[in-house]
Amino acid sequence: MLPAEIIKKKRNGFELSEQEIEGFILGYTRGKIPDYQMSALLMAIYFKGMTTAETLSLTKTMLHSGIVVDTSSIPGFKVDKHSTGGVGDKTSLILGPIVAACGVYVPMISGRGLGHTGGTLDKLESIPGFNTQQSLENFIRITKEVGTCFIGQTKDICPADKKIYALRDVTATVESYPLICASIMSKKIAEGIDGLVLDVKFGTGAFMKTSEQAHELAQKLMAIGVGYGKKVVAMITSMNQPLGRYAGNAFEVYECLEIMKNKKHIGIDGHDMYEDTRELSLQLSAHMIHLSGKTKSFEEAYKMAEEALVSGKALAVFEKMCGKQGGNLADIRYAKKQFKVNSTSSGYMTNYNVEKVGIAGIVLKAGRQITEDIIDPLTGIEFHKKIGDPIKTGETIFTIHCDDESLLSETEHLLHQAVTVSAEKPIEHKLIKEVLL
Amino acid sequence: MLPAEIIKKKRNGFELSEQEIEGFILGYTRGKIPDYQMSALLMAIYFKGMTTAETLSLTKTMLHSGIVVDTSSIPGFKVDKHSTGGVGDKTSLILGPIVAACGVYVPMISGRGLGHTGGTLDKLESIPGFNTQQSLENFIRITKEVGTCFIGQTKDICPADKKIYALRDVTATVESYPLICASIMSKKIAEGIDGLVLDVKFGTGAFMKTSEQAHELAQKLMAIGVGYGKKVVAMITSMNQPLGRYAGNAFEVYECLEIMKNKKHIGIDGHDMYEDTRELSLQLSAHMIHLSGKTKSFEEAYKMAEEALVSGKALAVFEKMCGKQGGNLADIRYAKKQFKVNSTSSGYMTNYNVEKVGIAGIVLKAGRQITEDIIDPLTGIEFHKKIGDPIKTGETIFTIHCDDESLLSETEHLLHQAVTVSAEKPIEHKLIKEVLL
Repeated sequence: MLPAEIIKKKRNGFELSEQEIEGFILGYTRGKIPDYQMSALLMAIYFKGMTTAETLSLTKTMLHSGIVVDTSSIPGFKVDKHSTGGVGDKTSLILGPIVAACGVYVPMISGRGLGHTGGTLDKLESIPGFNTQQSLENFIRITKEVGTCFIGQTKDICPADKKIYALRDVTATVESYPLICASIMSKKIAEGIDGLVLDVKFGTGAFMKTSEQAHELAQKLMAIGVGYGKKVVAMITSMNQPLGRYAGNAFEVYECLEIMKNKKHIGIDGHDMYEDTRELSLQLSAHMIHLSGKTKSFEEAYKMAEEALVSGKALAVFEKMCGKQGGNLADIRYAKKQFKVNSTSSGYMTNYNVEKVGIAGIVLKAGRQITEDIIDPLTGIEFHKKIGDPIKTGETIFTIHCDDESLLSETEHLLHQAVTVSAEKPIEHKLIKEVLL
Repeated sequence: MLPAEIIKKKRNGFELSEQEIEGFILGYTRGKIPDYQMSALLMAIYFKGMTTAETLSLTKTMLHSGIVVDTSSIPGFKVDKHSTGGVGDKTSLILGPIVAACGVYVPMISGRGLGHTGGTLDKLESIPGFNTQQSLENFIRITKEVGTCFIGQTKDICPADKKIYALRDVTATVESYPLICASIMSKKIAEGIDGLVLDVKFGTGAFMKTSEQAHELAQKLMAIGVGYGKKVVAMITSMNQPLGRYAGNAFEVYECLEIMKNKKHIGIDGHDMYEDTRELSLQLSAHMIHLSGKTKSFEEAYKMAEEALVSGKALAVFEKMCGKQGGNLADIRYAKKQFKVNSTSSGYMTNYNVEKVGIAGIVLKAGRQITEDIIDPLTGIEFHKKIGDPIKTGETIFTIHCDDESLLSETEHLLHQAVTVSAEKPIEHKLIKEVLL
């Protein structure tokens, strides 16, 4: 079938065969089918969707467009976590070490931040010397030696996804369940893992605005994982407020180190600003451990994770992993100048527009608008209020950490826009909405 | 607004502003916006449509991407006809001369055949020496001298449409009302005409399968024409059977000459096989003449058209126009070999799959699959049956005129598939379904 006929078939709402999907995707990856036909097909998929069978075929084709990492030499259960992205979401840096400390391997291939959401690689690269571009041999070796290793996407893994994702980004075809599912799952399955814990976020800072949408995406992602014989659990968690104390790369590493050192940071309102990061990291870790079959119950896994964190074992793993990947934690630097963003009204912190907070981060160069943007690892935004906290006029809501004062006014403007303060106390903000087992 | 944001806006069903449409289309035409973003926008338009205001903006942008022919030196009403395309549809060659003979100018810029439908330029170019690539100066001069001139699209007219149409063709985005409307109307308005008669076809050989769809398209086309201050009439006509006696370029010119010479061709069943071509040409001519204001009624215009045809004045115009455009009618050649396609059953001719007949024409090289295909002007398919005619087993339905016998078996196969013969006499086939004034 000609490419234009395949586009037409999807456009008209028919199910594509595995052969048609494979022919089109591989044709595109190999440069036989041009960008403009791929983008037309992507838009048709956006509107007409894909059946589970089609999504599985798409995942399979993307997966086999490259290599599947051979993790057979790693002697044990291998598990990863994938988050659909948010602001201040730094749990990977904590849960990798925790789970590894509990004897379950975490070979993690991560991405960079794009748009308002951050990326694990950017955070780690704020550690001077940290090399995320390891060979696959080193990746396996470090995972075996330390229990976890963090690397970036290589060109050998899912090249079809890489090429298609770049196209989706500029053709308004990102927000499509089957395309999202195939993109995420092909990369995760290519890691050679046995289990996967999904952190599917909803809210103002998430890709999915409602928990119902997040639930639907989680189910679709799980169906593919299960179709590949993987153990998958999904947590549906809120991105209606930024996670933890900081957003910004070096500052997020700092927060993780503090948590792994059992430090607290008691904020203006008397509660620990690290608490949500710590709790979500432990919950995700516990699911990862439990998936491996190491524990009889989730509760037992949670205890094991907490013990690894509290005892400092997770910190030791993190430090060892940094060392193996060339990172020097002693040299980590942060922006020196601080600027307060104070409330212009009083009441209760009712709503965060987390996407706006993320965009403020882009203005500070903590994030990037387009793939080619160069980020500044030293800048960050510090959060002083959580939803439900009382706020007085003039009280500090954010601290901007940034040495380039020319970026301040736009950042401040965005941060002011990002918060809603109301007279009435809002209903309690729940971090974890659901767990799909 | 970034191109990706404009795509997203349309994808989400919002109305684009004139500025957004103009920025995107001109950006694309000038190579600032890549094919893949244009094709994504086209597919989003396919699904979400366009309002009348948007379609007018699109038409305006396509129109002003090139020149508008300056026809001010032509001293009188200028009218054209546009058909949405069919098989055996050769009315332009007859109506241009008829209308010109009645003192109304017909400056006609036509297209080539693509897919199963034929094109006026291909038909004319079967006349040895006929040059459809005249300069615009010649185009105006010949129109003034003869009353009509037939040329092809030049690169100065609607370059945006040219580029976009080529992309639509390979991205399954042809079948979209606003895209069709803007494409047709921008080119027609660029001709510098005062009036336009639309022949919007429906049926198995037409782009629109039902008369309701044709009606809808006609209304949308008319709205744009009226928005530009043009007088527009639309006929909704059937393409449920091929028009006239022949499909195939030289053979269609032959049929037109025969009609202009007042010849008949009485077929197997006792009726004139030229009758529908003749009648539709007269009807369209009459609307063109009436639009010019030359007559008080349509009936008067019809009489005037018939008189121009019967008297031989139309033939004289046709011959003069051919002469001016370099064509030598005496040298026209036709395939010499003839092969009969006989019925394998008996009953009544109930249905034509006209698209299949058109595809059989492509096999014979009378038409082209892709723009780059070279056609053979000498081949053709002759029709011996119209819907409702009785058919006996072994009776000839088609004659294939083709000297290359290697093309026969596929052509015959397609032609056999293209007809349905049933025991019951079908309801009468109506050529003209509606006229929108």
